[in-house]
Amino acid sequence: MQWNVVIVGATGAVGQEILSILDQRSFPVGELRLLSSPRSAGQRVAFRGRDHTLGLATPEAFAGAHVVIFSAGSATSKQLAPAAAKAGALVIDNSSAFRMDPGVPLAIPEVNPDSIPRYAPGRGSIVAVPNCSTIIMLMALAPLHRALGVRRAVVSTYQAVSGAGAKAMEELRAQATDVLAGRPAQPSVFHEPCAFNVFSHDSAMDPATGSNVEETKMVSETRKILGPDAPRIAPTCVRVPVMRAHCVSATVTLGRLATLAKVRDTLSKAPGVRLVDDRATNRFPTSLKATGGDDVLVGRLRVDPSQSERAPAEITAESPESGFSMFIAGDQLRKGAALDAVQIAETALGIA
Amino acid sequence: MQWNVVIVGATGAVGQEILSILDQRSFPVGELRLLSSPRSAGQRVAFRGRDHTLGLATPEAFAGAHVVIFSAGSATSKQLAPAAAKAGALVIDNSSAFRMDPGVPLAIPEVNPDSIPRYAPGRGSIVAVPNCSTIIMLMALAPLHRALGVRRAVVSTYQAVSGAGAKAMEELRAQATDVLAGRPAQPSVFHEPCAFNVFSHDSAMDPATGSNVEETKMVSETRKILGPDAPRIAPTCVRVPVMRAHCVSATVTLGRLATLAKVRDTLSKAPGVRLVDDRATNRFPTSLKATGGDDVLVGRLRVDPSQSERAPAEITAESPESGFSMFIAGDQLRKGAALDAVQIAETALGIA
Repeated sequence: MQWNVVIVGATGAVGQEILSILDQRSFPVGELRLLSSPRSAGQRVAFRGRDHTLGLATPEAFAGAHVVIFSAGSATSKQLAPAAAKAGALVIDNSSAFRMDPGVPLAIPEVNPDSIPRYAPGRGSIVAVPNCSTIIMLMALAPLHRALGVRRAVVSTYQAVSGAGAKAMEELRAQATDVLAGRPAQPSVFHEPCAFNVFSHDSAMDPATGSNVEETKMVSETRKILGPDAPRIAPTCVRVPVMRAHCVSATVTLGRLATLAKVRDTLSKAPGVRLVDDRATNRFPTSLKATGGDDVLVGRLRVDPSQSERAPAEITAESPESGFSMFIAGDQLRKGAALDAVQIAETALGIA
Repeated sequence: MQWNVVIVGATGAVGQEILSILDQRSFPVGELRLLSSPRSAGQRVAFRGRDHTLGLATPEAFAGAHVVIFSAGSATSKQLAPAAAKAGALVIDNSSAFRMDPGVPLAIPEVNPDSIPRYAPGRGSIVAVPNCSTIIMLMALAPLHRALGVRRAVVSTYQAVSGAGAKAMEELRAQATDVLAGRPAQPSVFHEPCAFNVFSHDSAMDPATGSNVEETKMVSETRKILGPDAPRIAPTCVRVPVMRAHCVSATVTLGRLATLAKVRDTLSKAPGVRLVDDRATNRFPTSLKATGGDDVLVGRLRVDPSQSERAPAEITAESPESGFSMFIAGDQLRKGAALDAVQIAETALGIA
């Protein structure tokens, strides 16, 4: 069986990654239709050795499609995803347009695969891909939560510029080149210089709460994905001068006591997670180690002594504790977006 | 009155910054003696329009000195600081050699000025400058703790490469240039590539606890500076590709309820702290805004809803809460090291 696939936003950073992942995973692509904005329409993009001419994204362009993946921003998804679903396609949306829609599943296939509807010919539906930071955080926190009940997590992110698209990656490259040559940085995509700088996430800020939209997403999407007993998240979202992998520093409070050995064992068995946790050589997850890979890397696993009733010297891998810290890294364009979308398609089509 | 000043490690990143700060603050320098390792001895360094020849750091080089500032690493301080104190000088040590020595004050002049002994001729003493991350964190947390009782703080750092010295700053520059030109990064100072990467702090790791030395310092130095009721710190220390300012993401739990308005008011009055907290324009502390400045910047002040008993919509600046988050930035070479050392001298000499 081959599946007709439409990609909306094929020239973007995530769209390009979707094409590469479909190829790498030998996804059974039948007809491939690549759509874009009027600006890019007519350009040619290669897939499996064949050139495809970019078409215009219109409601008529979804006829005959089995799977339509949207990665062209929220406005395009809002405008066109319902038409694609109406045309009978499984619609997978990388934007925030439908994430909090109660009728739309929000899916990380390793975490909540049962939320993904099985594809049936002609029965269109929309499935949303969570925010990249939510995905990368929950790949580690969800299995811990299922096994040990995470009550609360304080998380600080170290987010790559790729989350703001291909233009942002070009801005980091251009700015770094300028700064190294002694020229001033020229911010355009971001409101702060991004080269050799760390700044609060550029998403819109709620003046009433002081949280930015990225943080609000991590809180509300976690609740939607993990349900009413989901951990309460205290996020601080921050941009760092890194191309395309996000890191997350997380300190959790468990609902019941557990040993570090149990926490490590749980994470070592979590699908899509790879432990990189070598205390002897000081090797842990980094942005670059996560870049280009499918796994979410987890390391720096340790007891948080500030939550322990024991003196630090009495804390061992076998003492029952409630607080643990860890460092997580994942490729924002892959597991944070494109890979999650392709995995949703595989799950829905039963080819996982 | 003029004071004879000796700087050990005058060619290092912190040593250079000390010279610039002494000049900017019109410190009444009498005789200035600049000492270094044999590698740099004989070189000439300018101060206030006069060239000074670097001398060798030996126990005999401290005769007649009123103030000796060490910034040449722990081994040099251990070897020579006692001789400098014996010669009657006020010794200010930027290394970790004496920080946890019970007989040596660990001083942030804005936080615990009373720990600094008043200089008396011939009565030598050693005062230690805390670790840079401890200083930058406590500039915000200590005033909050005094006013409102901070019980616990979960902190994640975004640390500049300058903490590893001038060579590390050169490594970031060289690696970024290489990577932008498509050449591989060549790690030398750090065990991971530093350009366009985020990695766990490079200090030694305790294999038993999984904490690195930087994190251990933040915990134990906080206890020494703030005493037995000090907040318990849960730190994760991380390097980012930034030249010379550290950022700290902090989420605190107060011992008693307070309003956000009270937290903001407390920090707005804290010496050496400047609020950069403009929700309307999304402008907050960044590494670059802190670079080259004396103030520690604090912003992203907000209630942590994960610690609140209220629904998010019911949280206001006037509701009593126990949890708050904030983002802190400070220049690692200035307030994190050189400025703190000069301020200690000013306090001890009564010229503050």
